[in-house]
Amino acid sequence: MNTNTYILTIQCADQNSIIAAVSGCISENGGNILNLAQHTAVDINMFFCRIKFEATDKFNLESFKKGFSKLEEKYNLTWHVFDMAVKKRVAILVSKTSHCLYELMLKYADGELDCEIPVIISNHPDLAHVATSFHIPFYQVDPAKGKAEYEADLEAILQQYKIDFVVLARYMQVMSGDFCKRWHNRCINIHHGFLPAFRGAKPYHQAWNKGVKIIGATGHFATEDLDQGPIIYQDVIRVNDTRSIDEFIRMGKDVERHVLYEAVRRYLAHSIFFYEGRTFVIE
Amino acid sequence: MNTNTYILTIQCADQNSIIAAVSGCISENGGNILNLAQHTAVDINMFFCRIKFEATDKFNLESFKKGFSKLEEKYNLTWHVFDMAVKKRVAILVSKTSHCLYELMLKYADGELDCEIPVIISNHPDLAHVATSFHIPFYQVDPAKGKAEYEADLEAILQQYKIDFVVLARYMQVMSGDFCKRWHNRCINIHHGFLPAFRGAKPYHQAWNKGVKIIGATGHFATEDLDQGPIIYQDVIRVNDTRSIDEFIRMGKDVERHVLYEAVRRYLAHSIFFYEGRTFVIE
Amino acid sequence: MNTNTYILTIQCADQNSIIAAVSGCISENGGNILNLAQHTAVDINMFFCRIKFEATDKFNLESFKKGFSKLEEKYNLTWHVFDMAVKKRVAILVSKTSHCLYELMLKYADGELDCEIPVIISNHPDLAHVATSFHIPFYQVDPAKGKAEYEADLEAILQQYKIDFVVLARYMQVMSGDFCKRWHNRCINIHHGFLPAFRGAKPYHQAWNKGVKIIGATGHFATEDLDQGPIIYQDVIRVNDTRSIDEFIRMGKDVERHVLYEAVRRYLAHSIFFYEGRTFVIE
Amino acid sequence: MNTNTYILTIQCADQNSIIAAVSGCISENGGNILNLAQHTAVDINMFFCRIKFEATDKFNLESFKKGFSKLEEKYNLTWHVFDMAVKKRVAILVSKTSHCLYELMLKYADGELDCEIPVIISNHPDLAHVATSFHIPFYQVDPAKGKAEYEADLEAILQQYKIDFVVLARYMQVMSGDFCKRWHNRCINIHHGFLPAFRGAKPYHQAWNKGVKIIGATGHFATEDLDQGPIIYQDVIRVNDTRSIDEFIRMGKDVERHVLYEAVRRYLAHSIFFYEGRTFVIE
Repeated sequence: MNTNTYILTIQCADQNSIIAAVSGCISENGGNILNLAQHTAVDINMFFCRIKFEATDKFNLESFKKGFSKLEEKYNLTWHVFDMAVKKRVAILVSKTSHCLYELMLKYADGELDCEIPVIISNHPDLAHVATSFHIPFYQVDPAKGKAEYEADLEAILQQYKIDFVVLARYMQVMSGDFCKRWHNRCINIHHGFLPAFRGAKPYHQAWNKGVKIIGATGHFATEDLDQGPIIYQDVIRVNDTRSIDEFIRMGKDVERHVLYEAVRRYLAHSIFFYEGRTFVIE
Repeated sequence: MNTNTYILTIQCADQNSIIAAVSGCISENGGNILNLAQHTAVDINMFFCRIKFEATDKFNLESFKKGFSKLEEKYNLTWHVFDMAVKKRVAILVSKTSHCLYELMLKYADGELDCEIPVIISNHPDLAHVATSFHIPFYQVDPAKGKAEYEADLEAILQQYKIDFVVLARYMQVMSGDFCKRWHNRCINIHHGFLPAFRGAKPYHQAWNKGVKIIGATGHFATEDLDQGPIIYQDVIRVNDTRSIDEFIRMGKDVERHVLYEAVRRYLAHSIFFYEGRTFVIE
Repeated sequence: MNTNTYILTIQCADQNSIIAAVSGCISENGGNILNLAQHTAVDINMFFCRIKFEATDKFNLESFKKGFSKLEEKYNLTWHVFDMAVKKRVAILVSKTSHCLYELMLKYADGELDCEIPVIISNHPDLAHVATSFHIPFYQVDPAKGKAEYEADLEAILQQYKIDFVVLARYMQVMSGDFCKRWHNRCINIHHGFLPAFRGAKPYHQAWNKGVKIIGATGHFATEDLDQGPIIYQDVIRVNDTRSIDEFIRMGKDVERHVLYEAVRRYLAHSIFFYEGRTFVIE
Repeated sequence: MNTNTYILTIQCADQNSIIAAVSGCISENGGNILNLAQHTAVDINMFFCRIKFEATDKFNLESFKKGFSKLEEKYNLTWHVFDMAVKKRVAILVSKTSHCLYELMLKYADGELDCEIPVIISNHPDLAHVATSFHIPFYQVDPAKGKAEYEADLEAILQQYKIDFVVLARYMQVMSGDFCKRWHNRCINIHHGFLPAFRGAKPYHQAWNKGVKIIGATGHFATEDLDQGPIIYQDVIRVNDTRSIDEFIRMGKDVERHVLYEAVRRYLAHSIFFYEGRTFVIE
């Protein structure tokens, strides 16, 4: 007996009757829809759909895929189906500040991150004790070796642990274009500014000097263009003008860790669609 | 040629394959789904679904209803279908404060309330000029006549204007049980407290005396039990402890008018489902 | 008997004992402090203070000013004292969209804007009826005349009405550098983007294309550098990815009108301090 | 040389010239005001003031107190002065859920809780490992012994560690009236509901059944009347109607831990004033 749950994601130009066709195909193949979220973006005439369904006894994944490929042809749609029993393997990269790492660890321990986290990697030794207290192997890599060699070390660890997805949890190294390409749309970074404003270094200093009244953080995919990758999640906090830069930094930590967690959660739930450099998060 | 848009709402015990069956039925009858929002409430095992579809040339409403009644039988579902071309007729009842009335008027003038507002009724003369400046007939009713007679006057105006739906926009009269029954789930009130706390009179005074740090407002259906009807929308605002009761009242106005508008908008969009004394708003 | 209330604002390099000296001076001259808000910005070592005091029988404004000028010398401070009985005269400039104008009108009518609004000016005839319904003179100016001549017309109206302060309430004309200089720190604009991101035209389109998850509006002083003047107030609203550009525009209106009102209110309360291109709002 | 920082709190009926008198007294005794926050609550005619000052070489605490007692007499004011170099000793009481404990531990480790935390106490063994990983002694007490004996054990530990202040971090035992009296205004509890609504057990279930659209948490002082003590801090989160009770519980955790931290921080900063069963938090 098959009791698996699957996520099906679909993306195509908007057309008539797609939902009926797709839900019919799932039903005919022995799937039972638990949740369907759909959006037609009228500004670009695109259709996005995320369906969670459970497999009944009659369900067979290969038959389903074969059946579905006919819809692919008919509607010219891009689609993926994910078996929720297969957990993504996630590596967390950190430097010296612990708040983002702790947030991910605590959510993971609480069963709120649906993945495996087999390894934590850092360019500094400072957070080894955190990894150890959660019984996760900790590796230190050395950027002083030179970017190519150091990224090769990093890549070797990612390969060794069969990593699917990388989280930069306030990792203070700019990744090479090659790295970003290899991990295209599979590497999330947290930026401590409300992008697209305040890119690059010291965003809290930039924000304070500009006198903005609300600060934020942005979870986005890492791309070769620094801090310009597709945005997944953002949150903000009001700062009145009696706050110093140090207080911006302190208050911002709570926003950063929350945003990173929410971005990772959306990735693991297969809720993220891509179109022309931006995301559509359909939940 | 038929270019109408329809909203279909469905509510039933959760069962397999409902979405496939429903979307199939729409498609077979010449409807094209524009938007489908669905929710299975696991705590009560109920399924709620709101579908917006456009009618193609082949669509015939009576045939659709006939076809759909088979699904009604099979799945034991409660359903309604609304022709979006038929606008609800809404009466607004006010007393002396203008902020909620103005909000509805401005949104109406801006095309953001999908209804007709043929009449404004008050128990005071104060806001006649507002109605007039928006060219809407204004009636004054007199509660001093005694509740029965005064509500009869009110009802006569509602009948005269073929009103479908009543909005109490800070209307300072408690409606009778009979009135609430007649307008069951068709009369929205705005309460200036974050219900279920601070029911009844002077909610801002109650909130201040309790020292709460956040105040709010609640849009809900009027029922015989004062301020206990199903909640549609709520919003809040942080109040620091340097605020006086008068400032609570002033700040609260912005929350009230926003909440009332959002509640009315959800009603007009047919997004509200009812189950055991509460609402499920599915958008 | 003198029952006036005054606002005193002070700005200087941070030094010991300023609060004691200032509050002593007020007390000795027959003033009674009702409210004192003070902030030392450690990042720039600056002291800002806003004091509201009432005048007792013994108070004499000229004596107070004479006494206070000694503190000015000793602490090298910049200060202003405002008699709250003297209302600022405010002109509102509008174009075609009514939401910001209506917000200011309604707050004004409700006694929540502590000023006089003797005139409304527009480059279009569309909103004349709004001005009229609030019994405020409406003037139309014509940019087609050429910038110099048109701004001269505008300036003549502002002079005629003895205007102290100008509010650009979605006024769709870029003001000249000369105008901005003449009205330096006395002209507030509302930008429909969360500055410093999305400067210039069509900020909602920019935001949608970038895929940001939160949009906002910014109330700021108009300067020659478009959308770069000192920020007074900002607010934001979460937008999920099912929102179209049109919905951004619709939802943004509520943020814009609220932000503009809050910015104007802070200006009228003398709560805004300036330092190196940014504001410090001390309440 | 004396470089200490002090917090002075003052509370009295509102009167003329208090700020001048108080700031003068500090200055004359060799104190330099770093920050002054003051509020006159017009609804009850009470004056609250919190002053942070640094001691210059000339400052002598005993002389200051003597000098200040004259103001106490003249203005009939209640006051306290706290040497910020003397850290409060805080005990954390926990049961089985870790999120609130972890939040306090992480903020403590990050230097953002200005206190000593010498002991963690629980009625269950589950969280011993968390205490140990932060190198803080962990004690288990046994309610099965009977309330009197078990609270005596608890009290003995609190005495042994010279505890000033107790934090109930989702501690699942109702404290006796005697305990609440002994720790009057020195024991903070976190309630997982937006008080005063949803007192007592299972507040998330209550909230879901009522269909509220926003849930919250409340940090308050423990009193004999369950969940009715003075409120210190509250925060809320919007929940749409597609959320289950389990999701309320999961989402609520983030609100609870944040609110508890903010409440404790305000207590340690001496920002909390009491008047007629509510707090005034003056920052």
